Amino acid sequence: MKFGIVFFPTVSPADKPAPQYFDEALRLVDLAEELGFDHVKMVEHYFFPYGGYSPDPVTFLAAAAGRTSRVRLGTSATIPAFVHPVKLAGKLAMLDNISHGRLDAAFGRAFLPDEFKAFGIPMDESKSRFVENVEAVKRLWTREDVVWEGTYHQFGPVTLLPRPVQQPHPPVFVTTAKSPESSAEAGRAGHHLQTVPNVMSTEELQDRLRVYRSEWAAGGREAGTERIHLTYPCVVAHDSAEARAKGRFDDERNTAALSAAVASWATTTSSAYPGYERMASIGESRFEEKLAGKKLIVGSPNQVHEQLEQLAEWFGHDITLSLGVHSGHLSVDDAATTLRLLAEQVIPKFSGTP
Amino acid sequence: MKFGIVFFPTVSPADKPAPQYFDEALRLVDLAEELGFDHVKMVEHYFFPYGGYSPDPVTFLAAAAGRTSRVRLGTSATIPAFVHPVKLAGKLAMLDNISHGRLDAAFGRAFLPDEFKAFGIPMDESKSRFVENVEAVKRLWTREDVVWEGTYHQFGPVTLLPRPVQQPHPPVFVTTAKSPESSAEAGRAGHHLQTVPNVMSTEELQDRLRVYRSEWAAGGREAGTERIHLTYPCVVAHDSAEARAKGRFDDERNTAALSAAVASWATTTSSAYPGYERMASIGESRFEEKLAGKKLIVGSPNQVHEQLEQLAEWFGHDITLSLGVHSGHLSVDDAATTLRLLAEQVIPKFSGTP
Repeated sequence: MKFGIVFFPTVSPADKPAPQYFDEALRLVDLAEELGFDHVKMVEHYFFPYGGYSPDPVTFLAAAAGRTSRVRLGTSATIPAFVHPVKLAGKLAMLDNISHGRLDAAFGRAFLPDEFKAFGIPMDESKSRFVENVEAVKRLWTREDVVWEGTYHQFGPVTLLPRPVQQPHPPVFVTTAKSPESSAEAGRAGHHLQTVPNVMSTEELQDRLRVYRSEWAAGGREAGTERIHLTYPCVVAHDSAEARAKGRFDDERNTAALSAAVASWATTTSSAYPGYERMASIGESRFEEKLAGKKLIVGSPNQVHEQLEQLAEWFGHDITLSLGVHSGHLSVDDAATTLRLLAEQVIPKFSGTP
Repeated sequence: MKFGIVFFPTVSPADKPAPQYFDEALRLVDLAEELGFDHVKMVEHYFFPYGGYSPDPVTFLAAAAGRTSRVRLGTSATIPAFVHPVKLAGKLAMLDNISHGRLDAAFGRAFLPDEFKAFGIPMDESKSRFVENVEAVKRLWTREDVVWEGTYHQFGPVTLLPRPVQQPHPPVFVTTAKSPESSAEAGRAGHHLQTVPNVMSTEELQDRLRVYRSEWAAGGREAGTERIHLTYPCVVAHDSAEARAKGRFDDERNTAALSAAVASWATTTSSAYPGYERMASIGESRFEEKLAGKKLIVGSPNQVHEQLEQLAEWFGHDITLSLGVHSGHLSVDDAATTLRLLAEQVIPKFSGTP
């Protein structure tokens, strides 16, 4: 099992000004680098406190690249539908070069109606644009004199510069959420997988991972070379009650931010997002229920160790966890404590990094 | 007079691999920070050795932001026509936040037919897209609940996050080249000015700066608050002959890179780019002629001091020079020597930073 961190800010300017949030996040990047965590990631969202501080994860990751030399750098995810593939392939390739091959490129379809509306992209085209644009980015990375005759973009012959450092191309992850088909397709396409356990039951996730791994291997790929990143909010403190109080507060704030961002699902339906209209009534945080279901990782080092053992048993010892340790609502010192306790008292009990 | 550096790589992967180029550039960023230079900038180009290592200057500048705390960070320029204004405003605002208000945002129209073709943008629309998109970016930075009903983009109401640190917005520069009208329009719009003296005669540039400054002041703005950035290639060495040999070699390589990038002007005409078709026959470097005309800054510290005195006399003591010290064809040690000699022996003779 490997461990990294994912930044998903849910603070507004009134909660915590963006310059302060980025200072704190970069301090945690330095700590993750020092403590041996596998990766740091940043989300892409717009307009709302729900991730809106980061409309371009590559910009943050490049700042992280400029001050680190070991930790991997991941988008979590970036949205191909909102940018020209030449631009996306180019800036990711720059990041791969500046970081000497430390990029993990995760791509997502997005799911917030207001984001699609701002970019003038019909939600019903989300899937077809995703598939086309990820393929275009990979083509630009791996081939020269690329001629692209897609539905949404046509260009070429062009040869992208700079060429990515990682060959044949940086690891490509597909971020899936509710759609069961997406996991199968990711395996079939030879893409790595990133998902959020909180949006489905444990049994559903087990099913999807089974299908994903089997499709991966069916393509003639070596079993075990696929990479699975699971995202969890995480608060660790010496004292169990303190961790729970902070974890509950953080979850309440994250839930409120999500709730505001998905409000427009009340007046939206899309055949490409079946059932998403129910998100509009997301309700309160249900912290205890999530904790009992191991949808978030909160507790003392011993409690967290037990939670992680359970995840390894459910989903496999080869998974990687991306821990959301700093939404911005708790102090940066709280987040640093989480990282230190994980690195010193929890992670050494598992094989892998750190 | 102020002094900064601009990175305009013109190396191909065979000349110098991109990871090495970026390592060297970041080493020079550190040196510029330490020596007190005003700014570091990065260009935006695609596909060709002529700037193609940097399809997204914000990615490089963010890496620079992550390891510096004083030097300003500039695009030189970024091209609004090739990206959605929400995306461009968002990533520039992130950079402004990560760097605590050190962004200088220069916008350009672009001029290479192959770039427009790849993005599916007609060159004849270059001007109108530029004007609309720069305005949209400024609107997103300065207002909330923005509703945009443009020719090329429609969106809103949306409120951009993160809000930029610099108020009312980061300094906006317009990069002009051959078009005389552009300088007047930049002054009228209250934009700062960035230009390349090599594409016109000294008298033409003097005329344009006169018009620019007068339009700036006519808008009721205080004279002297406008900022003018002039870009020059620059090689300084202890020995005059050595500086000239290196300067000539660098100019030959830069000219060859430009020549390859503009080849498609042989088969292109655009009403928006009158006379540009002549670029297709750019010919050889004419180093001696450029040196005599002070279109590049090359020599021993004393010679360079004299050249700079001449520029100040021609264009005003309030100008800022952006020096192209590392196209990648000379060694990074050569570029570091240029920076050190400037900082130690030349710049102290002028008022301003360093």
